[in-house]
Amino acid sequence: MTTTRGYHHGDLRRALLDAAGQVIGESGPAALSLRDLARRAGVSHAAPAHHFGDKAGLLTALAVEGFDLLAAALDRAGGDLLEAGVAYVRFAVAHRAHFEVMFTPGLYRADDPAVVAARTRAGAVLRGGVAALPGPSGESDRDALAAWSIVHGFATLWLAGALPPGTDPDPEVAARAVIRRLFE
Amino acid sequence: MTTTRGYHHGDLRRALLDAAGQVIGESGPAALSLRDLARRAGVSHAAPAHHFGDKAGLLTALAVEGFDLLAAALDRAGGDLLEAGVAYVRFAVAHRAHFEVMFTPGLYRADDPAVVAARTRAGAVLRGGVAALPGPSGESDRDALAAWSIVHGFATLWLAGALPPGTDPDPEVAARAVIRRLFE
Repeated sequence: MTTTRGYHHGDLRRALLDAAGQVIGESGPAALSLRDLARRAGVSHAAPAHHFGDKAGLLTALAVEGFDLLAAALDRAGGDLLEAGVAYVRFAVAHRAHFEVMFTPGLYRADDPAVVAARTRAGAVLRGGVAALPGPSGESDRDALAAWSIVHGFATLWLAGALPPGTDPDPEVAARAVIRRLFE
Repeated sequence: MTTTRGYHHGDLRRALLDAAGQVIGESGPAALSLRDLARRAGVSHAAPAHHFGDKAGLLTALAVEGFDLLAAALDRAGGDLLEAGVAYVRFAVAHRAHFEVMFTPGLYRADDPAVVAARTRAGAVLRGGVAALPGPSGESDRDALAAWSIVHGFATLWLAGALPPGTDPDPEVAARAVIRRLFE
């Protein structure tokens, strides 16, 4: 089955999500409109609404995709918390628009079942690696929050261009050194 | 000397900065316009341009004020890194609009001398506390970045409403437990 301008159904959804990621990367999520997206993707202005309902629906789909990608990236670290932390930073740098949407409250439907499921999966992978941390046991909630905070903070400061000039220009190298601090 | 509607000169500047903080808190910095600000503050639409030049000028003033407030807050911790970290989180929660502007690249003139001076001062206070961390010496740059990452990440996740339901409802209590992880 094909739709407007010969896109296959799934390809059009993909093209719209990719175009949304581009717009957000250039000018942030506030600037995004479904009408502009349709123009960018070269489809009828009704196509985005058909696929996503409204702007929050589209951003919800981006958030789900982001948490799925993040969970898969963390999973590939195979339970190594240091590598999972580096993977978190790598994800944020490579998928800047997803990362911004995922952590901007009010932009999307955070209680959508698909969001909750993807976010829970990502959280579970991160928590799985926390058992490897040295230190007092029985503090795994606190340790998971500390690990999440340090990688989220590093990624956010990196994306903001806020880090001092002496920082290693490779975000993964710089992140690995910082995260290692938790293991000392 | 008084200006439009009887504001004293400095008070009008203050009123415009406060109104800007309110708009950013409600709808983010993208939604801000100098014309709306003038309407909110009940002054002529030329007044914001007179004080700040343009929107980037106003956001630069907010960023300077933010880094100054942050440096003062960190300073009050008296070299105690744990308390400085808690003060960082307290600042972010209390001055959400400033915090958002300070760490959003491209919104303001980050190379403005007043921004550079205020940011450098805040950074110096944070680094001053890092010497107190246990662990190998000679790693103070790395340790400062780790401390900054953990408090920035915690504050950002808190403001995004992203933390898990079991987290202590008092951000300072929750932050203190997380930051303490760096000292173990």
